[in-house]
Order: sequence, then C-alpha cells, then structure tokens
Amino acid sequence: MISVHEAKEILSTNPLSLPDTSLPFQKSLHHTLATDVFADRDAPPFHRVTMDGIAIQAASLKANKRYPIEGIQAAGQPQRSLSNSNHCLEVMTGAMLPKNTDCVIPYEKIRLLDGMAEVDSAQYSPYQNVHLQGTDAKKGDRILEKGNWIHAGKLSVLASLGHAQVSVRQLPRVLVCATGDELVPVEQPPLPHQIRSSNVYMLESALKDLGINAKTAHLADERQELKEGIEKALKEYQVLLFSGAVSKGKFDFLPEVFRELGVDTLIHGVNQKPGKPFLFGRKGDCFVFGFPGNPASTLVCFHTYFKTWLSNSLQRDTETPSAILADEVVFNRPVTYHLLVKTTIREGKIWAVPIKNSGSGDWVHLSEADAFLSLPADATVFKKNEVFPITYFHKDNF
Amino acid sequence: MISVHEAKEILSTNPLSLPDTSLPFQKSLHHTLATDVFADRDAPPFHRVTMDGIAIQAASLKANKRYPIEGIQAAGQPQRSLSNSNHCLEVMTGAMLPKNTDCVIPYEKIRLLDGMAEVDSAQYSPYQNVHLQGTDAKKGDRILEKGNWIHAGKLSVLASLGHAQVSVRQLPRVLVCATGDELVPVEQPPLPHQIRSSNVYMLESALKDLGINAKTAHLADERQELKEGIEKALKEYQVLLFSGAVSKGKFDFLPEVFRELGVDTLIHGVNQKPGKPFLFGRKGDCFVFGFPGNPASTLVCFHTYFKTWLSNSLQRDTETPSAILADEVVFNRPVTYHLLVKTTIREGKIWAVPIKNSGSGDWVHLSEADAFLSLPADATVFKKNEVFPITYFHKDNF
Repeated sequence: MISVHEAKEILSTNPLSLPDTSLPFQKSLHHTLATDVFADRDAPPFHRVTMDGIAIQAASLKANKRYPIEGIQAAGQPQRSLSNSNHCLEVMTGAMLPKNTDCVIPYEKIRLLDGMAEVDSAQYSPYQNVHLQGTDAKKGDRILEKGNWIHAGKLSVLASLGHAQVSVRQLPRVLVCATGDELVPVEQPPLPHQIRSSNVYMLESALKDLGINAKTAHLADERQELKEGIEKALKEYQVLLFSGAVSKGKFDFLPEVFRELGVDTLIHGVNQKPGKPFLFGRKGDCFVFGFPGNPASTLVCFHTYFKTWLSNSLQRDTETPSAILADEVVFNRPVTYHLLVKTTIREGKIWAVPIKNSGSGDWVHLSEADAFLSLPADATVFKKNEVFPITYFHKDNF
Repeated sequence: MISVHEAKEILSTNPLSLPDTSLPFQKSLHHTLATDVFADRDAPPFHRVTMDGIAIQAASLKANKRYPIEGIQAAGQPQRSLSNSNHCLEVMTGAMLPKNTDCVIPYEKIRLLDGMAEVDSAQYSPYQNVHLQGTDAKKGDRILEKGNWIHAGKLSVLASLGHAQVSVRQLPRVLVCATGDELVPVEQPPLPHQIRSSNVYMLESALKDLGINAKTAHLADERQELKEGIEKALKEYQVLLFSGAVSKGKFDFLPEVFRELGVDTLIHGVNQKPGKPFLFGRKGDCFVFGFPGNPASTLVCFHTYFKTWLSNSLQRDTETPSAILADEVVFNRPVTYHLLVKTTIREGKIWAVPIKNSGSGDWVHLSEADAFLSLPADATVFKKNEVFPITYFHKDNF
C-alpha cells in the first residue's frame, strides 16, 4: 500500500495534456490563462484627473486667488489646453489633464462664482490629484501571467487591455459514473434495502465548482454492462470518475474490467482513511479515477487527488493552506487520517473543529464539514493548537 | 457624511424581498435553501455493512473457527437471513446486515476455502463493521436548515432525501449599468483620451460568483438618455448597479436623475476610502446602488455593501472573517480605509500583505489583490500583527 505522498507523486507525473482554446473574454471567468498578457499602452494612458474640480498651474497658486474659468475638460474629450496660466479649466474625474496645467483642486476646496473659481489654500503641489501616465504599468509590461486563474479583477484587466478573445486552457471532458445496485434515482421511493443515488450529484456539483460541466451515468454492478459502458466512455471522454466498485467486494468489478480494457492501473490502494481503495489509472490519454463509494471517501479523494491533479494539468499555481486543530484528536492507526472539520476564522486564525461522525458512510455529518485536515500517518495524538494541512470542500464562510 | 457602520445599518433595514422558487435539485447548487429539510427515514435506513467480508453471530466466535458460507448478501438485495448460527453469509459494503447476524469480519481477516470462511481471531464485538440504523439521523430529524447555502455536500443530502425539487430563494434580476463618455467597447481601439469599458464586466463577473446572471448596459453621460434608460430599468429589474456618475462632476447626473424619477436616496457619501461618493436608494421594490467609477471603488463598494445586503436579503448566515496585517500601514485621514491586500496562509494564520498601488484608479494592482482589510477611521497607525476585518474578492488560495 502506498502513502498519500507517493500517490500524489504518481498523479503529478501523469498529467492530462490540455490544449489551449480561445474564448470571448466574458466567458473566461474561472478559466486558467494560457498566455502572458502585456500592456498595449501605458496605464493610465494619459495624465488622468482623479477629482472633480479645476486644473491650474501649481506655480500660479496663492490663497484666495480667483481663477477665471476657461471651460470644461470632461472625461472622454480630447485634451484641451489652458491658454492663460492665471486661468483654470474645470476638470472631471477620468479626464485628461489639460495641457499647460499640472494640478487639480477639488470642488470641495474652491468656491465658484461669476465664472470664477476662488481657491481656499495655496497648499497644492504639482501633480496633486493627478494619476500620472504610466504609473501603474508601462506599455509592454507583463500584466497577467500564464497560469493565472481568471477572477473578476483579472477579467476586468483583460477588458481594459482590449483582449476581446482570451487564450485559456481547455477544461477536460469528464464523465461521472455511479455504480451500485443499491442505488435508485432521486425521484423514486427506495425499498427498505435501497438508497437514493447521491454521490454522482455530489461529484457533478464539485466539478461545477471547478468550471467543468460533466456528464453523468449510472452503470449496474454487472460485469458485461460495466465493460461495454466503460469501453465506450474511454473513447469519448478525457476523464472518467467512478464512485464505488473499487474495493474487495464480489461485485467490485472495476479493477478487473479496467485490466481487461487495457487501462494501466497506476494506483490501487492508499494508506489513508477514508478512501483506502482509491484507484487511478490511464489508457493512453484517458484517465480513470475510482473513488471508494462511501460519500466521505468519494469527496475526500476527489479533492485530494482529482482536484490537485487537475490544477497540475492546467499548470495553475496553487497554495497548500493550513489550519489549527481546535480539539485534540486521537487516531491509533498508522495511516493518513483525513479528518472532517468545520472551519471558523477568529483573530485571523483558521480554527478547524472536528465534525463528529460515524464514518465514511455518514453523509449527514459530511454535509456539515467544509474541509478536512490531513493528519500524518506517523502520529496518533493530534493536539489542540497543532497546525495541519487543510483542504477545503468549498469556501462558504469567506 | 455617514460612517461605514451607519451605511451598513441603513442597508440592513432595507432588504430586498425575495420570493421562494422551486428548482430541480441539480440546479440548486449555490442557492440558499428556503425551507428546513427533514429526514424521510432513518440514516442509515438499515443496519448497513461497512466492509466487504462475512457476517456472523459474534457470540459464535472462536479463533480458527471455520464457517460454512450460506450465500451472499449483496448491496441492493432484500435482507437475507442466516439459518444456522455457526454459518456465515458473505456481505458487501452497503448491503443490509442479514437477519440473525450482528458482526462483519472483513475479507482481509479471513481465509476462504472450499465454501468455508476461516476466521483468524476471536477479537470481534457485536456490531463491529456495521453502520447501525439511525446512527446519523432519525426519521423526522431536521437535516438542513432554511438559510443554508447549498454546496456539493448539501446538494448530495437533498438527493439522498429524495428532494427532486428544492425550494430556494429566488435570486434578483440585476442590471449593471456603466456610465462614462470616456469608455469604448473592449473590441474598439481607444483614442488617446479614451479607455476601454471594464467595470461593467468586473461587476458582471462578481455577480456570476454569487450565482446571478446579470444584464449589462452602457448609458452615455447625457441627462435625458440616462433618465429614459433608468426609468425603464426601474420597472424591469429589482436591482440596478451603476459604476460612475455619482460624484460631484458636472456630468455626474445620477443623483439628480434618481431624484427626478422618485428614487429615495438613502445613502449618498460614506466616510471611507475608496468609495466616498457611494449611493444607495430605492424606489418601491427596486433598489439602486451607485458605485463610484474608479475600479477599486466599484469593487470594494460592491463587496462591502451589495454583497452583504444580498446575503441579508437571502437571509443567509454569513461570517465576518478577519486577517493579520503583515506590514505596518499609516493612513492619516479619519475615514475607514479599505486596504487592498493579497492573503497568504501560513501556520493556520491568514496574513494580509498590502498591495502597493497608486489609488482607486489603479486596476493593474487591484487585480493582484484577493481581499481588502477595513481599517477603522479612529486610528492612523496600523501595526504589523494587528487583526482587522477582511472581505474577500474571491478565494483563489483556498
């Protein structure tokens, strides 16, 4: 049985090769940028007025001086020019600073009367209330980097730089497959020995959070049906996610069927709880993830392995956050223990409160967790205030 | 001029009234639950086998005892019954525990030979490897609460409980309006005095993060056009978000136009930087937010005011996280200072590193920030290691 660390190593040396694709910039939100992006001109592109008021020559200033107003320089107008250094132009936020002016005095600090602006104070320096051309970036500067995740702020940069089309990494075609003869559709009343299908929707939702619209399927625990369904899927999809049928049960046909179909099993079994029977394999450019069928096992393995592997395949920079254990935990087996927690932020610290639950089949308490801590295999007592790596299922409380 | 706190108070007493709506459960991701959800049966609904192996009567156990195998209890099969207390049934994870058995021994701990299972050890107690009926929830227990935000784990609970349709709060119809004659479309080369439109896309993206597909529009800084456009929008939308035209400029027609159209201005001006001219008003059941047009002002006001107001209107529970300032900051004016930061998590602590920038018009550096700290108005020196409330633009590093 390999360790969590070894499993991650295997995943990182088997990335999915994702081509680049071009999207209209408004559709690029949450995608990963495939190219560096450079400034097409200075930012700001001109000396930009930052307050509504008047533009003058700072050298002309005296307290209580009255400046005849020559006119208005609005935002979006070609640059005007002040003709007399003892006059002023009214200027609006976002406008070009007029020629022959070097200072803006806001309306709050002047009085307007009879076509004149009277200034209260002489305390203004050159380029006050002016956002100087090229302060934030020079033409040709690299503004965004390949591998950046496109959020609202970066999308707005793409707009500002005129990138109507954006080159991003293409997201993979993913099929989520449930197995398990005990499962009935959500809308069907289950018999006493049946339960409703749910993992497939959990995975579909977790994939949506990554921007992936997956297809879903249900395959019966029947060898021939599994084999035919998977053979077809291996040709149509880049990634197959399975929930269930990877353990030691009599109807856990997946490992065998994968072998028969020429899938190279790279991982089967990881020294962890939950999720011990986790399976990872590939056939050419199609990758299969076999998550153990208990809800917590499925979700923990999805985040530990699939999500990390996808970020790596997208060549997206990621961080490994950590959190502080809020209560002592004892776990006596020499395996990595993925402890379900609910996080809370107090005084700038992330506290991870263990969620009481009855094990990996307990979907009721799983839904109260927003993350899990990965407690190392080489210890048994994990003390309050100790820090451990954390993986978030979602980020509700931010 | 009112304080940030007073502005939030005004917003909280003017919520949007959002009706409930019913969605197919797969579409309910990231919505807010409008009803409590109860267990329709026990969870688990039966004594559930948690390991693949054999089921026996614990009282019959002796080391090296051989149990004739009576058959297989698969997951999804009606409950079988053990006929002889010295026999066993093979059982699969997820199956009902057979009648007349009370203990499961995993395959790893037995040897199978000639229709017999030989047990290694007598160290098994009743109900070992059995997930007892009703452990996680009893029929009738409340499992999810009104106001819960539906993430992958909770959506899977809805599936498990058979909620094919889910009652959620309806999200509002939102129009995002850019103003500003200096703005040209993204695909059009700007003249020297022009810039490309970007705030409207930033807001559109930030709304998408909240699950809202907003419409967008651009209105010229022309009084009559503004008035006609807004009059129409007040009837068609529940929320109008404006970027620009709310300050003291000659073409900042919005406050006046709102007055003329009967919009009750509840906030205009908040003692903060950036975002001082922020405006909030309502006409009947339509609400208007006027964000100052600089990119940082727009984004900070969106998160400080709109997002909080929406959560409140959805009656969604939210937390106010905090972070630790990573570098001393001096700010000499008696206003709340929304400091742009990039967060990083080390040892379970959220460190907020100030982003150097040239002010609220600097969209280049704004895009490097993932959050802002709100530094209180009554201090001027903010020391390294001090803790302040933080608002996230997005959660890239979690």
